[in-house]
Amino acid sequence: MREQQTIRLGILGCGTVGTSFCQLISGQASEIERRTGLRLEIASIAVRDTTKQREGVDTSVLTGDAAALVVDPSIDVIIETMGGVEHTKELVLAAFGAGKPVVTANKELLAIHGPELYRAADEAGVDLALEASVAAGLPFIRALRESLVGERVSRVMGIVNGTTNYILSQMTDHGAGYSEALAEAQRLGFAEAEPSADVDGFDAGSKAAIIATLTYGQAVHAGDVYVEGISRITAEDISNARRLGYVIKLLAVVEQNDDLSIAPRVHPVMVPEDHPLANVKDSFNAVFVEGEGIDQIMFYGRGAGGHPTAAMMVGDAIDVAINLRDGCHRSVGPLPPAQIRPMDEVSAAFYLSVDARDAPGVLAKIAGVFGDRGVSIRSMEQEGLGDEARLVFITHEAVESDLRSTLADLGELDCVKNIGQVLRVIGA
Amino acid sequence: MREQQTIRLGILGCGTVGTSFCQLISGQASEIERRTGLRLEIASIAVRDTTKQREGVDTSVLTGDAAALVVDPSIDVIIETMGGVEHTKELVLAAFGAGKPVVTANKELLAIHGPELYRAADEAGVDLALEASVAAGLPFIRALRESLVGERVSRVMGIVNGTTNYILSQMTDHGAGYSEALAEAQRLGFAEAEPSADVDGFDAGSKAAIIATLTYGQAVHAGDVYVEGISRITAEDISNARRLGYVIKLLAVVEQNDDLSIAPRVHPVMVPEDHPLANVKDSFNAVFVEGEGIDQIMFYGRGAGGHPTAAMMVGDAIDVAINLRDGCHRSVGPLPPAQIRPMDEVSAAFYLSVDARDAPGVLAKIAGVFGDRGVSIRSMEQEGLGDEARLVFITHEAVESDLRSTLADLGELDCVKNIGQVLRVIGA
Repeated sequence: MREQQTIRLGILGCGTVGTSFCQLISGQASEIERRTGLRLEIASIAVRDTTKQREGVDTSVLTGDAAALVVDPSIDVIIETMGGVEHTKELVLAAFGAGKPVVTANKELLAIHGPELYRAADEAGVDLALEASVAAGLPFIRALRESLVGERVSRVMGIVNGTTNYILSQMTDHGAGYSEALAEAQRLGFAEAEPSADVDGFDAGSKAAIIATLTYGQAVHAGDVYVEGISRITAEDISNARRLGYVIKLLAVVEQNDDLSIAPRVHPVMVPEDHPLANVKDSFNAVFVEGEGIDQIMFYGRGAGGHPTAAMMVGDAIDVAINLRDGCHRSVGPLPPAQIRPMDEVSAAFYLSVDARDAPGVLAKIAGVFGDRGVSIRSMEQEGLGDEARLVFITHEAVESDLRSTLADLGELDCVKNIGQVLRVIGA
Repeated sequence: MREQQTIRLGILGCGTVGTSFCQLISGQASEIERRTGLRLEIASIAVRDTTKQREGVDTSVLTGDAAALVVDPSIDVIIETMGGVEHTKELVLAAFGAGKPVVTANKELLAIHGPELYRAADEAGVDLALEASVAAGLPFIRALRESLVGERVSRVMGIVNGTTNYILSQMTDHGAGYSEALAEAQRLGFAEAEPSADVDGFDAGSKAAIIATLTYGQAVHAGDVYVEGISRITAEDISNARRLGYVIKLLAVVEQNDDLSIAPRVHPVMVPEDHPLANVKDSFNAVFVEGEGIDQIMFYGRGAGGHPTAAMMVGDAIDVAINLRDGCHRSVGPLPPAQIRPMDEVSAAFYLSVDARDAPGVLAKIAGVFGDRGVSIRSMEQEGLGDEARLVFITHEAVESDLRSTLADLGELDCVKNIGQVLRVIGA
């Protein structure tokens, strides 16, 4: 019931991921053929410099003409590993126009133009496969799109940026300061010389947009995601969190409320140290999904790297090739514009520290401010600092705007000398 | 490009999982329809007692005739939640014969007749979906079958039995003895009154067979799996392991060797406490996959329970319904008979404790036995016990039969009083 068949792959770009992809496909070709009946063949690779030597890559298939490759009728499937946004989008749309499915790991492209591209793929009746675009080395996108499409997912939380997780792990495990940990990450190649995209949360924000779109079937773009990075986290914050039984992680969080609005965001979070996300260290990634039926699921793996990314793209290529042979494709379904809940209206538990005069009645005054703003205190610890006291609060869930008002009111109290770090908390 | 269409589901059995399935389908029907264009409708449910009330289940669709249900031409997809093996197999084959795909969570059925059923589904051109059959609440089967089919997977290790994980967690976290922890698990309903299937490792063995079949594309049956349970693990073993930085877990392990033979087995393992599997507690399950491209992936979630199992079956039902509409199905590919490596030839690192006379030259004699059998010692700790000493060894990787010979030879030494626990170790 299964014929042997060759599927010819056209690859855009041949950097680390493209090279790994070619190596994995070559190494596994016969096993893939045995199990699927399909021979995956690398037919053409579009690169800027066709004269450069690339290990394990057949240079006779290199071409400089990406635009010709994506419409070449002898090519069945396009593997996009070149990166970039606008020009790449045109190439992907051209591939769809020529009836070719596309496999990509390009998160910027999907975070900006994803909904338009999913629709274009549907209209062309072909697949757009993107397993490697978020948390590249762990297969959770297909689970979200398929196994969980009937699940009422209440929240997805992901450690989806390896650079910031490496920095925070160094700070947690070795007491390093932020600048020191960043410098070490740069030295080891885990962080760019210009680290803003990672440490300011933009990379995780792109991934949050993709996760939100696929989880809730609504069109979410990178610009819809509220983003805070980790550069303001200090060694003292980390040690305070540890003392209270928490570790600090940068999380991409996507939640759906009862009114079906969604709140995609990226910010540091205090995570209880016995939570599965707390033990995801160094440059590993994890995606934690909560829902009515499933309770809790976590996917854990390498977040990046040529091999893990390429391995997921190989899985996608096989999937897409099978669909192509069988004349079907998978759709993410209609994507109406997302109802985004404004950050002001989002609820969370908060950690905050307040330095105040150590005098009778001060705690009552401060607690009164929380009460007036409807912010309920879950726990308080007091620490003497000469004639001042440092008060550390963890609140119950409170609406962001109420917390902001509380902070403003606290700032106007004479007895309050300084308001320190404010962090969101889960599991409180 | 997408027509609205109703897919009529026929359900076999309506216990905890069947009831949860009906509730989840009803609750999510409109969202499933919005996202996939398919209306999933519960057309008929075969039960033994059609008069019993079941919450959230429309009693007008109950029938006592399962054999008629599976061939009813008005039914599109069969959801098997009744359990059992031989009779259930006949019903599943009859469904395939009538051109209907089947969704099942029945691990015994698949561990015994899986390869025959996969082939029958292929021949009928329909799906056999089984996401909930192993580690029911976490979607890893589809990842193994699809995302990782092009991956050279070196090893899969799973905590796939919630009962034994609960017992071992109680022993680890609260210092309970085995019998005490088992009794507590029975009191809470995590263990059966007759616990052998769980504590002796047979349940995990069935799951190992399914994992091995899908990971390596070879027909592995329950009887091919080497099985040891946890009933010989003592509180002292647990505390010894902890002192050395390990926790004890019951793992299903599936490995492929360079000669492509595979070694499916279930036994207790000492896992380093910073390994992701070490933190999988209570009745949670996890599946840890290692491979050339992916490095390491872990899937974590609820191992059982009506809701998590049903949630995965809903995902499968949607997947199968889409394939049915699109006229395609997914195959696990050809499954030649597995080459099973005999347990004697399998390599592992071992922990063992030996009580010996505390006298000069004894350690040299004992170490000599290891050396003669080609078993290399990685670490040794000695503890005084009056005029005896307890020697605790962890070996480098050694072949099972060499380790057995070492134990036999040690038993013949005059200076050896007793050989205590022997456990396999990972990450040593």
